[in-house]
Amino acid sequence: MSNEESVSVRGETGEARRVLVVGGVAGGASCAARLRRLDESAEVVVFDRGPYVSFANCGLPYYVGNVIADERKLLVASAETFRSRFNVSVHTETEVTALDRKARTLTVRDLRAHTVRQECYDALVLAPGAAPIRPPLPGVDLPGVFAVRSIPDSRRIRAWIAEREARTAVVIGGGFIGLEMVENLIHRKLSVTLLEKLTQVMPPLDPEMAVPVRQHLEDRGVDLHLGDGLARIAQGTGHSLIVVSEGGAELTADMVILAIGVRPETALASEAGLEIGPRGGIVVDDQMRTSDARIWAVGDAVEVRDVVTGQETVLPLAGPANRQGRVAAESIAGRATRFRGVQATAVVGVLGLTAASTGASEKGLRRAGITTFDKVYLHPGHHAGYYPGAQPIRLKLLFSVPDGRILGAQAVGRKGVEKRIDVIATAIQFGGTVHDLAEAELCYAPQFGAAKDPVNLAGMIAANALNGDMPLADWMQLGRTDALLVDVREPEEFAAGHIPRAMNVPLSQLRQRVGELPRDREIWLSCGVGQRAYYATRFLAQNGLRPRNLSGGYTTYQTLRAAGMVS
Amino acid sequence: MSNEESVSVRGETGEARRVLVVGGVAGGASCAARLRRLDESAEVVVFDRGPYVSFANCGLPYYVGNVIADERKLLVASAETFRSRFNVSVHTETEVTALDRKARTLTVRDLRAHTVRQECYDALVLAPGAAPIRPPLPGVDLPGVFAVRSIPDSRRIRAWIAEREARTAVVIGGGFIGLEMVENLIHRKLSVTLLEKLTQVMPPLDPEMAVPVRQHLEDRGVDLHLGDGLARIAQGTGHSLIVVSEGGAELTADMVILAIGVRPETALASEAGLEIGPRGGIVVDDQMRTSDARIWAVGDAVEVRDVVTGQETVLPLAGPANRQGRVAAESIAGRATRFRGVQATAVVGVLGLTAASTGASEKGLRRAGITTFDKVYLHPGHHAGYYPGAQPIRLKLLFSVPDGRILGAQAVGRKGVEKRIDVIATAIQFGGTVHDLAEAELCYAPQFGAAKDPVNLAGMIAANALNGDMPLADWMQLGRTDALLVDVREPEEFAAGHIPRAMNVPLSQLRQRVGELPRDREIWLSCGVGQRAYYATRFLAQNGLRPRNLSGGYTTYQTLRAAGMVS
Repeated sequence: MSNEESVSVRGETGEARRVLVVGGVAGGASCAARLRRLDESAEVVVFDRGPYVSFANCGLPYYVGNVIADERKLLVASAETFRSRFNVSVHTETEVTALDRKARTLTVRDLRAHTVRQECYDALVLAPGAAPIRPPLPGVDLPGVFAVRSIPDSRRIRAWIAEREARTAVVIGGGFIGLEMVENLIHRKLSVTLLEKLTQVMPPLDPEMAVPVRQHLEDRGVDLHLGDGLARIAQGTGHSLIVVSEGGAELTADMVILAIGVRPETALASEAGLEIGPRGGIVVDDQMRTSDARIWAVGDAVEVRDVVTGQETVLPLAGPANRQGRVAAESIAGRATRFRGVQATAVVGVLGLTAASTGASEKGLRRAGITTFDKVYLHPGHHAGYYPGAQPIRLKLLFSVPDGRILGAQAVGRKGVEKRIDVIATAIQFGGTVHDLAEAELCYAPQFGAAKDPVNLAGMIAANALNGDMPLADWMQLGRTDALLVDVREPEEFAAGHIPRAMNVPLSQLRQRVGELPRDREIWLSCGVGQRAYYATRFLAQNGLRPRNLSGGYTTYQTLRAAGMVS
Repeated sequence: MSNEESVSVRGETGEARRVLVVGGVAGGASCAARLRRLDESAEVVVFDRGPYVSFANCGLPYYVGNVIADERKLLVASAETFRSRFNVSVHTETEVTALDRKARTLTVRDLRAHTVRQECYDALVLAPGAAPIRPPLPGVDLPGVFAVRSIPDSRRIRAWIAEREARTAVVIGGGFIGLEMVENLIHRKLSVTLLEKLTQVMPPLDPEMAVPVRQHLEDRGVDLHLGDGLARIAQGTGHSLIVVSEGGAELTADMVILAIGVRPETALASEAGLEIGPRGGIVVDDQMRTSDARIWAVGDAVEVRDVVTGQETVLPLAGPANRQGRVAAESIAGRATRFRGVQATAVVGVLGLTAASTGASEKGLRRAGITTFDKVYLHPGHHAGYYPGAQPIRLKLLFSVPDGRILGAQAVGRKGVEKRIDVIATAIQFGGTVHDLAEAELCYAPQFGAAKDPVNLAGMIAANALNGDMPLADWMQLGRTDALLVDVREPEEFAAGHIPRAMNVPLSQLRQRVGELPRDREIWLSCGVGQRAYYATRFLAQNGLRPRNLSGGYTTYQTLRAAGMVS
């Protein structure tokens, strides 16, 4: 990436070195603390534009929601802690305005004293993060329009709610932050409208997997406007604001939250001529070194490699940022630690529902040009069904064909969701296959799981599809196929709702009625969640018929239909 | 294992085959159902001594506790389901009394009709399970003394509690079933005494990791008698029973539960001359085939390989039993699926506390003669500390030295315990190292985890120990070492309790006071949970001193002391 000689700073000189870190949250803070543990002699100085370093920015929505009532809880480590524990100097409310790579200096502005100074470095770490996107639309700077990036941001929102006695809010953007803000504003007793340009919430999920989240929001009274973007915001009567959508909707509210997404803060880097990638992030190698051998960059501002698709991506998540900070520190200290890339493991809790994912989504695979994959759906309980309180998990597993390598998983449910995604994330880390999931040995007692855990089931079902025991039908061809659709549930289940055009042959009668079924056409089988259709598939295949399985059955059909993907 | 020609039954003949399955729970039921899916033409017949097949025996304690109120919930699949869905014949209340391998027949007794018949087989699957151990001691057969293996067992216990208005119980044995029975009897408002021959509860855990479970039981009012075995049971006045311990304690109660453990049911196999292993289980190969090429065995009755220690073991758990049933079915059907062995992943919930483990324990490693390992302790919150409600997890990670391969993990806490064990279990499955755990990318939002998840922390701490950044002190040498013990917590923490002989040098003063510390002696550092001692270790090591870390700090010390392992 760099044509300069790639030397670690330690290698160069026996003298104490000066390491500057721009940005003191997550990646920057991790890097500074780790560096001290590796090198007691280096001078380590951290600059941050805001009043705090090392605060829990993932906690900000919950501070707005008053779930976290005490602001001090958000301060993971204070400037004083950095000084006393780590001998690291922290300069808050200090903005870095310029980087002179040749002179190896930063131009630094003290926002309180209004003074400017130069700071020299032997090694520099850029951890500027990413800024909430504020689209250049009329009204986005009106009072009452907020983003959620810093503790002062959250404090202002809290004050606005309290002082204006806000009753209604429009949240713009249905991703992680948007949904967490919806939850927390509802927790504050506000009525919330959600405006999202895409036709689904939770863009990291595939549309059909986002359906249960959408339905849950609707059930909890959120006024959803999907497939409609922000056009402008106008001042209404009194203190109210009017959000005007691209589709012409006028949504009046006491406050507006902008949660459209974030953009890497690369101004300092790009003005200094550091390489910026096609995704808009700072380009780094696997030791987090930029195109300048004395400059490292970490966190939300950099481009990293997605280990599943092999493509560069920008992924603003705290876990990877922390790991990157450690890797950069080790590189600066002369250790050759490698950042292994990201796999986009993420979770969000929304009003009692949990949605989590790891690896690639189906749309992500298609975007990356990967077509040699297949997928299964299942809807197991989060623990054994015989123990009271089992909650369904809707699970989608994507895997490579024919080798069965796990490519990604998405899960939605009330309980035990993130556990399954964490297990699958771990399997992905090791390049595991669906066969590995099938034989994973996981915790089982009736209140925690099942003898065949949902992860095992996902692996078994996918393995059945791969090895030909259970050929899969393509849900997207449902409206076009000339296959015979057969629903093997019992008549009363069938009567309560079924896939259009399907005929009903209950599994319990299948052995007697097999003669009714054609041998010259494909038979696409479905049931409630997929288990009985699988049994039927095995029976028909062994009798010389041509069955395929509609993975996940009628339950999957309902989400596909709600997502507008089948009719 | 067998000198006979190892042929699959399918390979031999084109005709329909007859497969008999002895035992219709877990492994046997899985095998029968799987076999039907693989081979529609085989005749599959299941025999079970009891009145039910495929019942949820892991749910029995909860049925006693009335947490599962409806007995029918325990019936995963009925004989009728097996017939209608799988075309599998099920004969309940039918005991198999003899096996003639030469004639390929079973002698079968119908326990209702009191008739005996012969049943011939082409392939035979033994899934007899394991029976609760009833030690040959006086009084174990008295009315009111129960084991918990079957639905009728549980029904009898329920009836006894209801009819005798039982108020007190003695549970003998503090393993999984014993503790689940304690929980459920307390749920039924009984006062419970627990008698356990070992000096710890939960034998799969190392003693210090079982301490929090013991303390939790004590806090919940359980009368614990550890290190004391059963001598005899006598009839007391009225309907009461008197449990007399080896130590001479006399424990009066309205009922007694025997939960000492289980023993593989191998009578049929051994009388027929099948090989029985040193652990008392039926010997099988990795396709679950016994020493007779036409006979397979699965479940609690067989010996399996522990993938961590490489040794044979008997592990009565439902998950592996189910997997074994599938493997046996595939072998019978001519597929060469391999059972990968077991890693002893297990979990138990006790009155709101969860204890889980995977892989080898420290004592298990020592038993197996493995000495090239080390271990770390940590006590992280189950989610980010800044979000309300974080509960500590006590975690012990065992790893191979010097390669860092994960050997085992144990965790105890109120929430998120089994999730971390499942993730580590998955890493063990792939032969993962502590470095892999350090860089695992897991779900993080404040209510679910942390930017550095407990699993990451465990890996990081172990990696620090392995690579020399944080040399470990040996807790077991605490009473003998001439090292200087230094506690780096703040004075008020130190004053509230500390390791004997430790001096107090707070981390915040360490850089100033380093001159007070000796350069010619080891310095063993501790703090509350290990983090500050690690920082101190790094500082002192870089200053030429000889620090070691007492892993897990004062929190670990307290459990070790409570376990009698340090003074």
